Amino acid sequence: MSYTRTDGRRADQLRPVRITPDFMPYAEGSALIEMGQTRVICTASFEERVPPFLRGTGQGWITAEYAMLPRATQQRTPRETSRSGPSGRTQEIQRLIGRALRAIADLTALGERTITIDCDVLQADGGTRTASITGAYVAFALACHRLVSGGRLERSPVKGEVAAVSVGIVDGTPLLDLKYDEDSRAEVDMNVVCTGDGRFVELQGTAEHTPFTRDELDSLLALARQGIEQLLIAQRAAIAQAASPVR
Amino acid sequence: MSYTRTDGRRADQLRPVRITPDFMPYAEGSALIEMGQTRVICTASFEERVPPFLRGTGQGWITAEYAMLPRATQQRTPRETSRSGPSGRTQEIQRLIGRALRAIADLTALGERTITIDCDVLQADGGTRTASITGAYVAFALACHRLVSGGRLERSPVKGEVAAVSVGIVDGTPLLDLKYDEDSRAEVDMNVVCTGDGRFVELQGTAEHTPFTRDELDSLLALARQGIEQLLIAQRAAIAQAASPVR
Amino acid sequence: MSYTRTDGRRADQLRPVRITPDFMPYAEGSALIEMGQTRVICTASFEERVPPFLRGTGQGWITAEYAMLPRATQQRTPRETSRSGPSGRTQEIQRLIGRALRAIADLTALGERTITIDCDVLQADGGTRTASITGAYVAFALACHRLVSGGRLERSPVKGEVAAVSVGIVDGTPLLDLKYDEDSRAEVDMNVVCTGDGRFVELQGTAEHTPFTRDELDSLLALARQGIEQLLIAQRAAIAQAASPVR
Amino acid sequence: MSYTRTDGRRADQLRPVRITPDFMPYAEGSALIEMGQTRVICTASFEERVPPFLRGTGQGWITAEYAMLPRATQQRTPRETSRSGPSGRTQEIQRLIGRALRAIADLTALGERTITIDCDVLQADGGTRTASITGAYVAFALACHRLVSGGRLERSPVKGEVAAVSVGIVDGTPLLDLKYDEDSRAEVDMNVVCTGDGRFVELQGTAEHTPFTRDELDSLLALARQGIEQLLIAQRAAIAQAASPVR
Amino acid sequence: MSYTRTDGRRADQLRPVRITPDFMPYAEGSALIEMGQTRVICTASFEERVPPFLRGTGQGWITAEYAMLPRATQQRTPRETSRSGPSGRTQEIQRLIGRALRAIADLTALGERTITIDCDVLQADGGTRTASITGAYVAFALACHRLVSGGRLERSPVKGEVAAVSVGIVDGTPLLDLKYDEDSRAEVDMNVVCTGDGRFVELQGTAEHTPFTRDELDSLLALARQGIEQLLIAQRAAIAQAASPVR
Amino acid sequence: MSYTRTDGRRADQLRPVRITPDFMPYAEGSALIEMGQTRVICTASFEERVPPFLRGTGQGWITAEYAMLPRATQQRTPRETSRSGPSGRTQEIQRLIGRALRAIADLTALGERTITIDCDVLQADGGTRTASITGAYVAFALACHRLVSGGRLERSPVKGEVAAVSVGIVDGTPLLDLKYDEDSRAEVDMNVVCTGDGRFVELQGTAEHTPFTRDELDSLLALARQGIEQLLIAQRAAIAQAASPVR
Repeated sequence: MSYTRTDGRRADQLRPVRITPDFMPYAEGSALIEMGQTRVICTASFEERVPPFLRGTGQGWITAEYAMLPRATQQRTPRETSRSGPSGRTQEIQRLIGRALRAIADLTALGERTITIDCDVLQADGGTRTASITGAYVAFALACHRLVSGGRLERSPVKGEVAAVSVGIVDGTPLLDLKYDEDSRAEVDMNVVCTGDGRFVELQGTAEHTPFTRDELDSLLALARQGIEQLLIAQRAAIAQAASPVR
Repeated sequence: MSYTRTDGRRADQLRPVRITPDFMPYAEGSALIEMGQTRVICTASFEERVPPFLRGTGQGWITAEYAMLPRATQQRTPRETSRSGPSGRTQEIQRLIGRALRAIADLTALGERTITIDCDVLQADGGTRTASITGAYVAFALACHRLVSGGRLERSPVKGEVAAVSVGIVDGTPLLDLKYDEDSRAEVDMNVVCTGDGRFVELQGTAEHTPFTRDELDSLLALARQGIEQLLIAQRAAIAQAASPVR
Repeated sequence: MSYTRTDGRRADQLRPVRITPDFMPYAEGSALIEMGQTRVICTASFEERVPPFLRGTGQGWITAEYAMLPRATQQRTPRETSRSGPSGRTQEIQRLIGRALRAIADLTALGERTITIDCDVLQADGGTRTASITGAYVAFALACHRLVSGGRLERSPVKGEVAAVSVGIVDGTPLLDLKYDEDSRAEVDMNVVCTGDGRFVELQGTAEHTPFTRDELDSLLALARQGIEQLLIAQRAAIAQAASPVR
Repeated sequence: MSYTRTDGRRADQLRPVRITPDFMPYAEGSALIEMGQTRVICTASFEERVPPFLRGTGQGWITAEYAMLPRATQQRTPRETSRSGPSGRTQEIQRLIGRALRAIADLTALGERTITIDCDVLQADGGTRTASITGAYVAFALACHRLVSGGRLERSPVKGEVAAVSVGIVDGTPLLDLKYDEDSRAEVDMNVVCTGDGRFVELQGTAEHTPFTRDELDSLLALARQGIEQLLIAQRAAIAQAASPVR
Repeated sequence: MSYTRTDGRRADQLRPVRITPDFMPYAEGSALIEMGQTRVICTASFEERVPPFLRGTGQGWITAEYAMLPRATQQRTPRETSRSGPSGRTQEIQRLIGRALRAIADLTALGERTITIDCDVLQADGGTRTASITGAYVAFALACHRLVSGGRLERSPVKGEVAAVSVGIVDGTPLLDLKYDEDSRAEVDMNVVCTGDGRFVELQGTAEHTPFTRDELDSLLALARQGIEQLLIAQRAAIAQAASPVR
Repeated sequence: MSYTRTDGRRADQLRPVRITPDFMPYAEGSALIEMGQTRVICTASFEERVPPFLRGTGQGWITAEYAMLPRATQQRTPRETSRSGPSGRTQEIQRLIGRALRAIADLTALGERTITIDCDVLQADGGTRTASITGAYVAFALACHRLVSGGRLERSPVKGEVAAVSVGIVDGTPLLDLKYDEDSRAEVDMNVVCTGDGRFVELQGTAEHTPFTRDELDSLLALARQGIEQLLIAQRAAIAQAASPVR
């Protein structure tokens, strides 16, 4: 295992994780998640409506939007406000975040309401989509807690936990939680989304240059499992900190 | 293993596969791929230009577009011609097909040219994105063969084979090559893209309702491997049939 | 009469016509029409709704969409999926096809339903809009036949036949059924749409370079009449072949 | 011939025609054309550029745009400024006007320049597209006259005259120059564009409800020929009036 | 006061003003306003609907649209028909016109109806947005007069007068009613909208190059007040001329 | 003075102002500005290009973009990412911010480069456009300082200071720095942008319901002048704090 990480981390080490609950006071639930230099604001917004395909079903919906501030990147990235809507990459990420949350939610408990998750990247240094999922869970859980304690929902739609992390292979070395410099030269890039009890919600592995073997897949999954355990702990701490003194 | 398939297949059985090479005579390479009721026209088009980010690099590009005829579906589906470009789903599929082909292509051998893969679904009965990749490879290989034999390329950009198949879990049973009725009620849906030597190019597994365990993942990967072996044989036969009498 | 056609046809000769009914099994009615190298898939789709301006009138509607696969052409033509909807040419063709079908349809017999005609060009060698109309009539007639025999309509909305052909003047010679090479150098280009009893539904003549005289108009109309007679025979044969064993 | 026109005209009578040259002083050429209640401002604008497909050919281009002021109609019609560009109807009209002018223009005399014709309808009472062509010719001829006399062109691109009129069948009666109330209930509607020497540039006949016979076609063409003769006289008078004292 | 105006006006002099009422006969109210070479058609259109946010409130709405004919300008300006709707400048002007009219309207007297003001610039020589407001008031007042006299409204929504003018500083000299050549080199540009009793509805001053002092502001406001007095007189004359013989 | 403010402020009192410099480390200059509950991230980004109209002039450009996070508001506001670009309100604000910065910038010192100001509102409680200008100046000044000290610019384009504040009339009382609850019921709303030496850059006053007199205008301008003095002090403190230890 020869690759040395530019920030001195071990191959199986996460970046410093910090989750600040209630960063956006107007939202039903919110969190700022920082994983090293990557910083994402996640909010959960509650609305008394569902998309047309759910009307009359008694079921609710969870959807997600994702965007980056223009100077989240080293060079300014133009906004996706113009032309023909969000890019393909943005839509992929939005769909991924939405599926991840829905996988641990009881949409019947939500009733015919929508929770919209907004993930706005303040600073991007790799792993923004997995950080978004991890932070979005905190915003979602806090929102549900308040909606129940405030009497707007009878029971909580939270039926499990979910967190996500990226893994990849750089110079033949499997690594946990890739920074941007690692991500941009990785041979293989994989996003893993797991529940609190260790089952898979999503597995998205892509060989950018070099197809990967079954053994490499097994190594990556082991690293991901390890990282997700730590993220679940950080999520629980942030929720505990926020939820006790309900605003 | 209790689930009985509506078309009587075994859990580990592909639908009948038929690949008709040279279905679109104006294209540099083309194929009609049929997997049961799913039918997709794949073409490979050669152009003497590259996207801006590759100009001056000596490298070529492979990109893909995917669309369905309105009556590819049981009910008519409106075209994505209007409004703001292709949907998120379509863009995800296009990006997947493009990455799959690039993973087995030598973009330097292509030089500063673009090959555009068009996958147009005549009929959709599940598995259109994986059928598109499997058919696109045949179109791509035929195009490269003719571009070399016609003197437009010095050496072939084909440096490997690629094929794809879907697997999933229905009523707890892992299945190979899901039809639409199976796909729409699957607990887990996974698309697997492999090279001719059995390595992974893409792995995209999604738990629609029920997160999946590591054991279930292993079963699905075994089924996928088996299906891809048979698809590689069908691809080779189609290419052999077409390539000998160069048009 | 000095102009010699590149495929050796007489000036008053159609290209070989082949109409394959029921090419698209999910559609209520469909046909693949081939006129020489021009190939178009036509489908007729039935929906239980009408556009807003017909609600409450008891009348139905017939509308059409037209598109080309990117490799229908010698060089790849970009899809019209992006930006601002179909081009002016495409919209002209769609409106023409819709008017042609409505001219021979009893919209009251249809009731407040819509039949959408989709014409998707697999291969384009001139005359795609007139081939689309000729094929669309077959798809429409088959759909109506099945909707009546299946009990979804009380009586058939088909109250006549319709077919179309192009004529034009090349090097001073009036020609029937122009191929692409002829069309692109024609002085005059005319599309003629007629009913089964020989009356005009549409007449669209354009002098691309040289305005035309009344005598030239008369010659062109005579050629068109002759071509349309043969197309009506091919339509009737295709419908007879398909309709007998109702699927 | 039983139909009585609501404005008391004979079947073969034009509405009062008035053409005011130089209505828009900033344009190289312009005219306000009034045919009864229909009023259209036509301008011809000269630019030192051609579309990409003509660069390096030495040839110029003539293109047209058409729009209606919102209160050109009895009820306000929303602008086509929003959404996805001009409607299909508008594009058809724009293409028709452009072809009509190009048919009598010497694009080589124009050199690599573009003349853009703008037809803006102040008031619409039927026949706006044919009035646009008739008025556009005046604007075009005046512009060419000034471009030559001002030394910006060596010789005039005007190589003929062009005018247009609508004809149609209402209650079985062939009529010249349909007003809106006639147009909206016509069985057949035909736009005829002719050169100054009586040849056809465009012929667009549509059976809205009732297909038309060859005899009816002949009657309509005779009416159109007669109307166009009078429009040519009005055009010549307007040009003579304007062109003498060059501004 | 050193700056000499190119048209010989005094610094405190308006251009010749002409307001032609009822220029667009189909509209409920209309006027053509000319201020020197600037010419704008203003119409007021009445519709029995309100935007969603006013439904059920008993209140009406006044909104405005603004556009220029392509040859309103010395060089042809492309239409804003394509791409993504009106430009920022156009939207600013539309919002300004709408607010100005609403400031003197009784929206409750209007009931749940909308009056849409359309300002279409035939010719632009500076001050088109202020001319639009001044002309729009005439169109609006005439429309209300007829809607009341025709029994479509019980009482008039007109509760005051409104007019607008531009002022600015050129070469250190405060000027009234800037022409285009003055506007394009002004250090300060200010649009002033006032009611008939001399109060401000809008004040929009912009230092294009040189920030302005409080004393300069006072001079500009005095000039504006003087110009608006004269415009109010011209408005009253146009309304009197039109309103007496109700059409 | 009868109106009592909901947060207990005096009529002439600003909300607490806090400006955090360097909030976005990747940007050349940045600041987070907080005025009470209103929070805006401002960044200044430097690029080696100018818009086409400035190429070859030796001059640079300053442009601005403005957006709100969806949960900047009490209820979630949809992003302007979809459809047809930013709303009219957003474009007005962007143009205002750009003009304000250009008024105090030496675009020749900038050379042919662009500085893009991004103002992203985290939380909106009234006055976001004026807070954006005040914060944008800090981001701009910091960026220029670093561009000069880092050798990318020879001399600083900062030739003055600029700050902005809102004033308005609520229940007849002139107020400084309106919160959202005040803004939404104000009779008059005015944004004032001034330079460091007290001259006006922009003055935008709007009577939402009640036109305002000259005396009221004078009161509002006096309040604005007072507020801007304090904002200039806060700006200078933030710049001093950041600029000393250049990162």
